[in-house]
Amino acid sequence: MRELRKDPITGRWVIIAADRGKRPTDFGRSPVLTTGGFCPFCYGNESHTPPEILSYRNDGGASNSPGWKLRVVPNKFPALGIEGELNRQGEGLFDKMNGIGAHEVIIETHDHNASLATLEDQAVEDVLWAFRDRMLDLKKDRRFRYILIFKNHGEAAGASLEHSHSQLIALPIVPKLVREEIEGSKAHYSFKERCVYCDIIRQELDSKARVIDENPDFVAIAPYAPRFPFETWLLPKNHDSCFEDAQKREYQNLSRILKSVLLRIDQVLDHPPYNLVIHTSPITETVNEFYHWHIEIMPKLSKVAGFEWGTGFYINPVPPEESARLLREAPGAE
Amino acid sequence: MRELRKDPITGRWVIIAADRGKRPTDFGRSPVLTTGGFCPFCYGNESHTPPEILSYRNDGGASNSPGWKLRVVPNKFPALGIEGELNRQGEGLFDKMNGIGAHEVIIETHDHNASLATLEDQAVEDVLWAFRDRMLDLKKDRRFRYILIFKNHGEAAGASLEHSHSQLIALPIVPKLVREEIEGSKAHYSFKERCVYCDIIRQELDSKARVIDENPDFVAIAPYAPRFPFETWLLPKNHDSCFEDAQKREYQNLSRILKSVLLRIDQVLDHPPYNLVIHTSPITETVNEFYHWHIEIMPKLSKVAGFEWGTGFYINPVPPEESARLLREAPGAE
Repeated sequence: MRELRKDPITGRWVIIAADRGKRPTDFGRSPVLTTGGFCPFCYGNESHTPPEILSYRNDGGASNSPGWKLRVVPNKFPALGIEGELNRQGEGLFDKMNGIGAHEVIIETHDHNASLATLEDQAVEDVLWAFRDRMLDLKKDRRFRYILIFKNHGEAAGASLEHSHSQLIALPIVPKLVREEIEGSKAHYSFKERCVYCDIIRQELDSKARVIDENPDFVAIAPYAPRFPFETWLLPKNHDSCFEDAQKREYQNLSRILKSVLLRIDQVLDHPPYNLVIHTSPITETVNEFYHWHIEIMPKLSKVAGFEWGTGFYINPVPPEESARLLREAPGAE
Repeated sequence: MRELRKDPITGRWVIIAADRGKRPTDFGRSPVLTTGGFCPFCYGNESHTPPEILSYRNDGGASNSPGWKLRVVPNKFPALGIEGELNRQGEGLFDKMNGIGAHEVIIETHDHNASLATLEDQAVEDVLWAFRDRMLDLKKDRRFRYILIFKNHGEAAGASLEHSHSQLIALPIVPKLVREEIEGSKAHYSFKERCVYCDIIRQELDSKARVIDENPDFVAIAPYAPRFPFETWLLPKNHDSCFEDAQKREYQNLSRILKSVLLRIDQVLDHPPYNLVIHTSPITETVNEFYHWHIEIMPKLSKVAGFEWGTGFYINPVPPEESARLLREAPGAE
């Protein structure tokens, strides 16, 4: 059973995915990540993932065989299924649809011990190109409204395999936090006729207090009201509403600032687990004046307690001026 | 430094509380909860908490001395400070105010080894009366807009002391998730002229598929679109917009269903950590037709990964019909 259900009060959609490999009573508190042993993402084990959707190779070797630099495969335990119709329907008060979507894994390198922070610049850039290639392909599917790309690094951040990888989920709805950002941006735009993120970037570059790093195309900042300690945003300096339409030079500069920021985080916080999420426009309005795509990185340092769950209201013990200063002063290169 | 800051895009407020006992570099991944050893919430250690705000006692003993059944004290490491003015101000684009609020701890019992699930009915009811007494008192402070009551049970749920306790935070703003529930409820009301929660209760009592327990005044359900496995809501059957105005009989029946549900959760999930949050109306509109106060209980079973953080969109591997059935069939009494 895979179903999308909507909370009738807040409009929040959830995926109910009962066949994701666990029975209710299996929910233990034991670790999920296995270290050492067999890895389905290493050379020679290509047959242990579903057949690849995309791979980048130096030598033009055969699909699903070693020699690749990067591979994209369907998730073996997908949260959503790719086949079928949405079949939107009501259930009394409630709204639901079939759990249709794409759930893919981007295996970022063949090197089991590498991470995004330690890969070569070109390899990090390749990861960005793979994100873009998959987004462009999935945008053609009329069932989807949003393509979400994220990375869970380390067990505490939700990773179940240690080999460096990202994930992509194509969704038939626009997730709630994205919708809120879009609506907030629209409200600012309708009042000011300026993009709120562009305004933020101007103010941050002016004050410098929360700037971590910058290059000709990107800036890395600690946001003014961060939910989490050391939360970091990477934003394109020029207004751009969607990730997949960036210029070639921009992907190059994004790969550089991303690597630099991850190295700084590793230095200051001793290789913490983290979550990384690309925030981009919904498929139906990719080019617009009000929304500004960006990447959010959230190191996983403190437990989120009842206060946060219950309210969407966060207590952050590290002022962003302090986290920005520490990350700014750390070396951004090996 | 304690400051409330608003995210300029989504309107989300966060508390930046830099002096909460940790320096940025102290953020380890080590456990916080100490078991055994000294407990400031036990008899004889009253001087190790700030002086009590309220206590319930059988024998009329002196304040801050043993003999109490329940104690309310200020949090020793408060997220917000009680003294001072809000001093709302702008900082360019951004909005902030001083971190003013109340942060109190409700010590639910003197028995170090008891839990809400195992306390006597009357003791659980006393906890509810203490919540109400503190809410009524804090509502008089014109600086506050919302009073949030929550409980973190177990280390993975964010508890830093194992002795059974709840927390209360009085806030000068209405937290985002509450505002969303209020706005969603208002939208339903303006369309239907009925409370959306009343509609849900009618439908759930009719279908029974997601009902866990009920008594004359309350019903416990697994919500239709739960974010988390075994998420459980307790709702008053009759429309009531705020927790603190309930009838005496209702607190009695609430204590019974609360205890029953926690016992069922302990049985089925082997004493899991959990978060419990009271959702009630903001102080400025406590009596209304559209919002329905309730309690949400979220057992902490699975890790929340990047997907959830980035989007407010949740993948739940346990259908609520299944969690409701398991909890319904478990014994609700010792």
